[in-house]
Parts: sequence; C-alpha cells; structure tokens
Amino acid sequence: MVSLTPNPSFSLMVRVQLPNQAGMLAYVTMAIGEAGGNIDQIEVIERTLKTIIRDITIEASSVEHAEAIVTALKGLEHIKVLNVSDRTFNLHRGGKISVQSKISLKNQSDLAMAYTPGVGRICTAIAEDPSKVYSLTIKSNTVAIVTDGSAVLGLGNLGPAGALPVMEGKAMLFKEFGGIDAFPICLSTQDTDEIVQTVKNIAPVFGGVNLEDISAPRCFEIEARLQRELDIPIFHDDQHGTAIVSLAALYNALKLVNKSMGSVRIVINGAGAAGLAIARLLQKAGATQIVICDSRGILSHGRSDLTDQKKEFAIDQSGSLADAMVGADVFMGVSAPGVVTVDMVKSMATDPIVFAMANPIPEIQPELVTDDVAVMATGRSDYPNQINNVLAFPGIFRGALDCGAKTMTTTMFLEAAGAIASLITAADLNREYIVPSVFDERVATAVSAAVQRAARADGVATR
Amino acid sequence: MVSLTPNPSFSLMVRVQLPNQAGMLAYVTMAIGEAGGNIDQIEVIERTLKTIIRDITIEASSVEHAEAIVTALKGLEHIKVLNVSDRTFNLHRGGKISVQSKISLKNQSDLAMAYTPGVGRICTAIAEDPSKVYSLTIKSNTVAIVTDGSAVLGLGNLGPAGALPVMEGKAMLFKEFGGIDAFPICLSTQDTDEIVQTVKNIAPVFGGVNLEDISAPRCFEIEARLQRELDIPIFHDDQHGTAIVSLAALYNALKLVNKSMGSVRIVINGAGAAGLAIARLLQKAGATQIVICDSRGILSHGRSDLTDQKKEFAIDQSGSLADAMVGADVFMGVSAPGVVTVDMVKSMATDPIVFAMANPIPEIQPELVTDDVAVMATGRSDYPNQINNVLAFPGIFRGALDCGAKTMTTTMFLEAAGAIASLITAADLNREYIVPSVFDERVATAVSAAVQRAARADGVATR
Repeated sequence: MVSLTPNPSFSLMVRVQLPNQAGMLAYVTMAIGEAGGNIDQIEVIERTLKTIIRDITIEASSVEHAEAIVTALKGLEHIKVLNVSDRTFNLHRGGKISVQSKISLKNQSDLAMAYTPGVGRICTAIAEDPSKVYSLTIKSNTVAIVTDGSAVLGLGNLGPAGALPVMEGKAMLFKEFGGIDAFPICLSTQDTDEIVQTVKNIAPVFGGVNLEDISAPRCFEIEARLQRELDIPIFHDDQHGTAIVSLAALYNALKLVNKSMGSVRIVINGAGAAGLAIARLLQKAGATQIVICDSRGILSHGRSDLTDQKKEFAIDQSGSLADAMVGADVFMGVSAPGVVTVDMVKSMATDPIVFAMANPIPEIQPELVTDDVAVMATGRSDYPNQINNVLAFPGIFRGALDCGAKTMTTTMFLEAAGAIASLITAADLNREYIVPSVFDERVATAVSAAVQRAARADGVATR
Repeated sequence: MVSLTPNPSFSLMVRVQLPNQAGMLAYVTMAIGEAGGNIDQIEVIERTLKTIIRDITIEASSVEHAEAIVTALKGLEHIKVLNVSDRTFNLHRGGKISVQSKISLKNQSDLAMAYTPGVGRICTAIAEDPSKVYSLTIKSNTVAIVTDGSAVLGLGNLGPAGALPVMEGKAMLFKEFGGIDAFPICLSTQDTDEIVQTVKNIAPVFGGVNLEDISAPRCFEIEARLQRELDIPIFHDDQHGTAIVSLAALYNALKLVNKSMGSVRIVINGAGAAGLAIARLLQKAGATQIVICDSRGILSHGRSDLTDQKKEFAIDQSGSLADAMVGADVFMGVSAPGVVTVDMVKSMATDPIVFAMANPIPEIQPELVTDDVAVMATGRSDYPNQINNVLAFPGIFRGALDCGAKTMTTTMFLEAAGAIASLITAADLNREYIVPSVFDERVATAVSAAVQRAARADGVATR
C-alpha cells in the first residue's frame, strides 16, 4: 500500500508546556521530526520564568501517524502535552457555510419593504410574469448541489448525512471561485425516479443543479432526465468537471510531446462516471483511439458483463490493463491507488503522458516514473499538474447562469477545456505546468466567458 | 374599500433637478404633500450655480398613488424629474439572501482541510456515527422554509416562484432574529403525498422544517405526516406562529380587562390554517367558549359544507358573524379587510378585546372604534399592538434546535406564548402595549428558553 506524505488533512494542534530554557524547543521539534511529522506554525501562548506554553501545528500522514507523534511527545522528559486537537475536525464544527441576509433589518421600514406588506408586490409581479423570478429573487445566482451519498469521494456509499461535509465544501468552492450561492441537497433516497422527481419538485428556487457523488450508472439517467425535464442547466461534476479539466491538461501535454489528439492511443482506467465522461469528451475533441479498462480489464466486445454505458466503448481487443498500456501514448487513471506499475509505464509509446488521478493516492506515485514519462499529472496538490475539478465547475456555472443557459452542451465543455488550457502560454508551458493553479484568479472568468460564447453559439442562452 | 396609509412598501426614490434658488424645495415638497405622499429622506446629489439635483424618498399608499405623485411632480414648472425608481423592487433585485463560507479558502492547506482529502475523515466519522451530523455539519442550525406557493400571504395561489420572495424574507428574519440559517424550498407540486415525500427526501441537511403559505386543509395533513415520519421538528408558521402570538397578546389583554381565559366568549373569524390553530391553542390555554366563523358564518352543526377540521369546532348556534359577535368578549380576525362593522363591535360585551389581524388591511380600521374597545391589536406595524409571527418562530426554532427537540409540542407553544406575554411587566402593560416590539431583543431568547424548558418537560429534547 502506497502511503500519503504528511498533509493538512491530518493536521494537529498540540499545546505543550516546556521548561523555559535554551534548547527545549529544538528537543521537541526534533522529536516531532523523528516521528515523521511536518511542523507548520509554532505559537507562544504563555511564558513564565520557569515554563513556556506553545501551540505547535503538526501535519501527519494518517490518524495512526498523528497518534504516534502525540505518543512520542508524551514520552519526552520535562515536556507536558496539555492538549491535542484535530484541526480538520475543529474546522468542521457547526458546518462550513451559512445563510446571510444581504440587507439589514433594523427598522419597520426595512421590514415593510423586504417582508410584508412590500414583498407582496414582488410576489405578484413574478406571478404575472414568471421570467421575473430571475431578476427579483436569488434564483439567477443559486445552484443546488444534489447528492444521494451513494459514491462519496472514493469512500463509497456513505449516505446523505455522510456526504454533507463534501457538499458544504463544494458550496464553499462555488462561492470562493465562482461567486455563486450554492446549497447542499442531500437526499435520503437512492431511487432514480424519486431523485429525479425530488429535484424537479425543488427546482423553482435554483438557477442550476450540480449533481455530485451519485454512483454510476444511475447518475447518467438522472442527469439526462433532469436535463430533459427542467429548463435550467444540469451538470454532473464527477463526469463533466473531471472530463473538462482532463481534456484541458491533455491539450497542453500533447503540445509538449508534439502529438495530435487524432493520432494518439489513449488508455483510460476506470469505467465509472468520470472515466466514461472523459472518453466521451475526448471523442468530441477529436480522439479516435480510446481503450477503456475497468477492474476486469479492457472493455471488449467479448465480455458479457458490460452495462449499456460500457458497451458503447467496447473494442475488439481484450486483455488486462497491462496489455492495454503497451504502446499507448496517454494513460488516464480515474480508478484506484497503485494499480499501475513502473513496467506498465515503460511499456508505453515514446514520450508517454500519464494522468494518475485517483484520489488521494494516485494509480502510480509520480516519483517512481519521473524519468520514464514526458508529462505526469495527478489529482493532488502536492505534486505539479493538479487535475482539479475546481478549475471547471465554478466558471461553468458562472457562465451558464450569466447567459441564462437553459441546458449544458458539449460545446460548452469543449470551450471550457480550451479556455483553461489557453491560460498557459507557450512560453510558460512545461512538463510541470500544463494546467493553471486552482488559485489562479483568471480561470473562472476565462471559463465563464468561453461557456457563454458556446451557449450563444449553440442557441441555449437566453441572455 | 378601506385604503392603506402611505407606507414603505410603496416607496419611491425620485431624482429631481430644481433651480438652485430659495423656495424651490418647498415648492416641490408642497406638491408631494398635496398629492398625499409622505416624504422620507432628501439627499443632495449634485449642485451647480444654476441647478441642484436631489433624491427624494417618498412613501405612497399604492402603485396608483405613487404614479399620481410622480405625475404631479412632472407637472411642476421649472422642475425636471430625472429618474423614478421603486425602492421595494430595487431592494429585491438579485434576491435577498446569500450563502457564505464560514472559512476562507486562501491556500492549499485550507482546501485540504475543508475539502478533499481532509473532508473525507469527517464524512467517515458521520457515516460511522450518524449523530455526529449535528456537530460536524450545518444541520444543527439549518431550517428548510417549505412552501408550495398555494396560499402566499393574502394573495392566494401564486405558485412556487411567486412565493420565493416571501421565503427569502422569512430566511432573513430567521437569521436576524434567531441566528438561524434558513433556506427556501419552493415546491413545484401541490400534491400532498408528493410534498411529504419531497420534504422527507431532502430532510438530511435540515435540523427543522418551517412550513409556510400552504393552503388549508392540506397543510394540516402535511404537517402531521411530516412530524410523524421525520425526527426533526416541523412547524407550520401560519398556524402555530399566529396562534402563539395571538395567545400571548390575549393573555395580556385579559389582564387589562380583568377577565379570565375560562370565562370569556371568543369569536374567531377565519377558519383557515390560522383560525383553527388559534382555536386549538386557546382551548389548550383554557378557553372554553369559542365560536368560529368562516365566510358563510358560524361553524354550526347545522351546516353540511364543513371540512373535518371545521367540524371539530361546530357548535349548536348558527348565524352570521354579526350574530356571533353579540355579547362576545373577544374578537380575533384572521380573515379579510373591512368585514367587521362599528355596530358589530358595539354589540360586544363590555370591555371588548378586538384583534383585527387581516393583513395588510384589518377587519376593521382601529380608528373607527378607538373609544368602543378596551384593547385593539392588528397585524400592522403602524398601529399599536402588532401581532407579528416574528415574535414567535425565530425563538421557537432557536429553542428547538438548541435542545435537539425531535418534535414540536403544544406545551412548547403555550410556554412560548407565556414567555412573550411576560416580557411586558404589570407596570408597563397598557391598552397600547400588550405585546413586545418585533425589535425587542429579549423576545427570541425568552421564547427559546421557554421552548427548551417545555421540550425537556415533554421528553422530546435530546440535548
């Protein structure tokens, strides 16, 4: 099993009391270092003649590792561990989002305009002309983040309550990167018909729907039916967000190796929502040779266990992932940790492109094949080239909402991918910089503009 | 038809250009006064040697009245009307609430804790112990404001989009007065079964449900079924909010006239959600003689047109509202403008108590019976004794959420009414001060404390 390096998701705050004398902090930090912990901030809380109390923020690689570090500290002579808190848990207490009023309600006049009796005039205006709901309510900037909790991150079917922290996090990203008000809708049903009906029933408040962490193949039908039956854009981020950013990264990686989309052989490992959506978008972008593998190997005509969705991509070739990768130009993994070996990468064509996007542990650790690949990307922030959906969905929805798109189209996705890729100039492009940082402020605006252009071209924009 | 006095819900901002010379402002303000407009703020926008541009905020009594004022201004010599805007509409543009992140996302470390990979640890913790959803997500402070738009204010069946401005306003009130994050859920169905199913499906995110503007008799069944099938408190504000505040006001009014709850004859006009809920709560508070009228008169055993809900309150007496009011001690109207005459009030018992709560125009204008009643209350902010639900629901939910109540109970409502009434001391109590102001900051805290006490006494609190 490949393990994580220390990172902020296992971040501790340890309050320790040390003798107030030279060398004691070094003694403590050395112990933390020997236990494999990364030290972040160190703050002084209280200092007396004899003692000093410090808060030390430490990153570990797992819960067990964090415990081992604390045990190591507790074993030190002269040092007292006063308190240990888990920063990730602390940050989540009480949830991560809130609903705020845009206007203060300080007197009767505020109340009379924002609520009764003044609000009645607004209600009547909307009832008389339903299109006014876009200008006079939150609808035009509000997105529902809908999940049934059936495929939460890589963790599986945790149900609606277990999915809520992810949806709150997503709402934060929508706000931070797209200025969009998004609200989590975590459903206590995993029945396709009921999900569709429920989302239709709550749709009037929302200008768009972001489907999230709903397992395949139900996610395909849910998305298609909602898009058919509602007049607001529906977007399944696990499919299209991943596909758009992967395509953007591939555009730039291909430039580096001087190969064309139409000529490369692409192996996709993982035939869930993300893998199939990547394959579909790559085809629209001109890819002609795509081999998809699931956990049983290549999706081939010979197999009798394929869903309709998988059959769409079945080919004559059969075999394992290792067989598929021989001579391939591009590998894209949306599958499981460590399933790709060094030998598999070495069996690829010259200048291989490897996107090992399984999260948080990639299909192959990048450092194992540094010299064997032309370009490597992962889903992680601690390696170069992070393929992160947050590069796509805030701008996608910003654009769709701003032009009043009634639906999402493939052109919008293709243009979005092109916009992300084009933010990296030829001069800056290199094997460690094929996609912009998630904190690059140009991204959402560029994606939004591209999406609006595409929506107008496709005739789905209303503004 | 009784008309409204000028008020902020018909508030105009008029930008006028006047000659910069003495007396011109008086000339303009006199014209506004003659047209019946109330002047609020006057601001100087620009001043030159020859002219001065001012923004004048004017309250009118109706859209037509506002137009008449503008026409009067446009007819003035030397004065140029540059712009007219409707403040209520302006305030509603883009909606009134937003979703905010509680934590900033400024670097990879923030992202790694609030979103992937750190959030996965929180999801797993909740999946393993579902009760943790209350401490680690927004659930414990989040309420769904659910409507089907079938009975929006006094305006009728405007549908979900037409109801949204009210629900946004309600969310503002929840935040301002209760510190609660509430989010509007406007349903595109008016089918009872489907409403129940939809609310059940979206319940995982919410710590409580506030039903709003759902027409009778469906609202009774929806509330009862949701309360039976969900383990979070359900509250239909149009019923219980109104009932709680009416009871609070009645407690204090009865003190003033020295009558007891058990001895008074009470006429309720209006047999919708509010009227029936008031009747039920008054009974629980000890009232024994209640006569309810609907638009066809007294709910009497002789009538064949009564719903089951109305039958519960049918009595032997039959007749009109006027018949019912003869000799009554208390009148409570939750019905329609102007349906009560001066003669009807004069036919009541000595020291009559009249709560004319129809909004925005009461059953009888208070000034018509000033000397004929002991106590008068309305739903309006421009008369004394405003019976406003905002005195109840923020504190009710604050209390229910804080003690983890699994349901709402009648004891909670009775205690809440008592808490509201008791905020007015014997020394302060008078015929123009029987309920606290909606801006009285003690109210929500007092209600919350009473509700928690009642919930614990009833055994429905979990914290």
